[in-house]
Amino acid sequence: MKFTINRDVFIKTLNDVSRAIATKTTIPILTGLKLTLDQEKLTFTGSDADISIEASIPVSNDAADLQVAEPGSIVLPSRFFTEIVKRLPEKDMTIAVTDTLQAVITSGQSEFTINGSNSDEYPLLPEIADDHALQLPADVLREVIGQTVIAVSTQDSRPILTGVHIVIHDGAMLAVATDTHRLAQRIVRLEGAGDADYDINVPGRSLVELARTIPDSVDTIDVRIAENQVLFLLGNTAFYSRLLEGNYPDTQRLLPTEHTTAMTVAAASFQAAIERASLLSHESRNNVVRLVLTPEKNTAVLSSTSPDVGTVQEEIAFKALTGDTLDISFNPDYMKDALRVVGQSDVTMDFTSALRPFTIQPTEDTSQFIQLITPIRTF
Amino acid sequence: MKFTINRDVFIKTLNDVSRAIATKTTIPILTGLKLTLDQEKLTFTGSDADISIEASIPVSNDAADLQVAEPGSIVLPSRFFTEIVKRLPEKDMTIAVTDTLQAVITSGQSEFTINGSNSDEYPLLPEIADDHALQLPADVLREVIGQTVIAVSTQDSRPILTGVHIVIHDGAMLAVATDTHRLAQRIVRLEGAGDADYDINVPGRSLVELARTIPDSVDTIDVRIAENQVLFLLGNTAFYSRLLEGNYPDTQRLLPTEHTTAMTVAAASFQAAIERASLLSHESRNNVVRLVLTPEKNTAVLSSTSPDVGTVQEEIAFKALTGDTLDISFNPDYMKDALRVVGQSDVTMDFTSALRPFTIQPTEDTSQFIQLITPIRTF
Repeated sequence: MKFTINRDVFIKTLNDVSRAIATKTTIPILTGLKLTLDQEKLTFTGSDADISIEASIPVSNDAADLQVAEPGSIVLPSRFFTEIVKRLPEKDMTIAVTDTLQAVITSGQSEFTINGSNSDEYPLLPEIADDHALQLPADVLREVIGQTVIAVSTQDSRPILTGVHIVIHDGAMLAVATDTHRLAQRIVRLEGAGDADYDINVPGRSLVELARTIPDSVDTIDVRIAENQVLFLLGNTAFYSRLLEGNYPDTQRLLPTEHTTAMTVAAASFQAAIERASLLSHESRNNVVRLVLTPEKNTAVLSSTSPDVGTVQEEIAFKALTGDTLDISFNPDYMKDALRVVGQSDVTMDFTSALRPFTIQPTEDTSQFIQLITPIRTF
Repeated sequence: MKFTINRDVFIKTLNDVSRAIATKTTIPILTGLKLTLDQEKLTFTGSDADISIEASIPVSNDAADLQVAEPGSIVLPSRFFTEIVKRLPEKDMTIAVTDTLQAVITSGQSEFTINGSNSDEYPLLPEIADDHALQLPADVLREVIGQTVIAVSTQDSRPILTGVHIVIHDGAMLAVATDTHRLAQRIVRLEGAGDADYDINVPGRSLVELARTIPDSVDTIDVRIAENQVLFLLGNTAFYSRLLEGNYPDTQRLLPTEHTTAMTVAAASFQAAIERASLLSHESRNNVVRLVLTPEKNTAVLSSTSPDVGTVQEEIAFKALTGDTLDISFNPDYMKDALRVVGQSDVTMDFTSALRPFTIQPTEDTSQFIQLITPIRTF
């Protein structure tokens, strides 16, 4: 294998693929980057067994100025190779692979020789048929991911809860995640989803990396789903994730259908108050803030106490407050996450009692995005 | 104690003083911030026993809008208090201390009550007479610190070497530091130093913090030196450091007076080459790069090898190369530091032999700033 290429273009693709490359793994070759060169393109492959990313630079890419001298392939130590490429002195670089699987990297007067591995030892990516392809707008996918991954479980005790449950049915996509303390569910209508019908569980970590990988230049993402793999096609980049096995619990029955107290606030200012209160709660063992709603007196008071350190209390400037008096306590970190993904709009919180989960929904658009937080008993 | 103040101005001074506040200490009260209020000013004090910083906001500071309601003093938990102040909702805040040593902090609708300590328990700052004051230009002091602290020892086996040796004599200041592997020495003429005559050892860490604390607005720094303390006056901020006890070793005899090979290079491009070579040296056990100078062939080749990973070699584009052939090995990290503090100029390196220390000096200005690196024997 031998080629010359523009270093900036090479680094950009390298960074994309590096996201998938394992830093520690039981399969040593996965710490490597696979490079494959043919007459049409240079292909980068990185994988940590859960996520795999494959990206290509075609010879038709003018900025890349890819000159193919001899096709071939090799696996190079990813982290180390990346540091070298980033520090080379010139605009272009040449990589030539020797018979002894060494890569000779030259740029200006600088010449590195590094030991590689045989690409035959690198695992093959899964093959996924394209007969059930589905198209998703990139911005919708990015938003749905951001709104649901906050609620996936980070504990391995129930692996299915480390994923986001995605159901595509009847021209709509439902995405839901819960770690049993909180839940986030988003529904979007899909134009042209046709009769697509899927029920899959995608690891939360895969979705976080996917959202980071989607280039701004990509508007539409092709999704292909197989037995235990999903493939997202982002322009010249293919993003593979394994799927979680098992049945996701029924979350629909968790959503309350009625409420007795409701408060509407500006998400940003309520979040600032929650952050102040959490300064105290983080100093105490149980990390709890208390919200006392008194509609008949038109007051909402947020407070927290840490016996060693002190106390905080603050009157919340709400936009609406109706229903029964309520005294409820919850984990402020869950509320911070919930308000953050709602963004700069107003939210309505519907409460039933001090011990029943309450909902958080953007005020403008109540049918599409709902979050649930379970309160904490403090008495 | 009770006062109202502009929060931004308060935070700025708080940040300056926080630099000195201990994060872990055997003296618990030193994790606190001491606030002292009189009719003229609000004074902040922070200390970790080695370094102490005292800064004031006078009532005459219009931006601060300091309103003194009741003089007094208190010690508050520094980290936690800082986080609270930064997150308060309004432009101003009021702090009132109760009879039970609690501070009530209010801003808008937000009210924090935090537990403080009696300021009588806080150690007093040393008193330093002003009869031997010395004035230093702020930019000179900042530069001398940056050029010498890189060479102080980070090991406690010889405490004196963790400091910078500063000698003021005959209208000049000499600053020198060495960790026995390398040395950095800077000499500056001092206008108006008069007959000042000092020989002190200032902890390297104190000087690093001092350089960070010097405000851009300060041109001249008053220095006062006592038996075991030095005080730097930076406008409204007083910076105290303890001095190291003991005699600094004689470093003058270490500086070579002749050389047999000399190379002049642009510091920035040589540094880039050293960084590339160090990618390999960092992967091997002994962290060494090799420089082969062959003046008669007009070549200078830098290289490094790590048996597991690979090799690098690079021809250095020098500006001048004279003298005998030389094959020398050294720690590239020392060279990187040395070139960094020289900045964007040319440097001349003078070598005697493969086992003798070599010097690095800015080409323009050879008498004032000299660095020494001890090579590593590889054979």
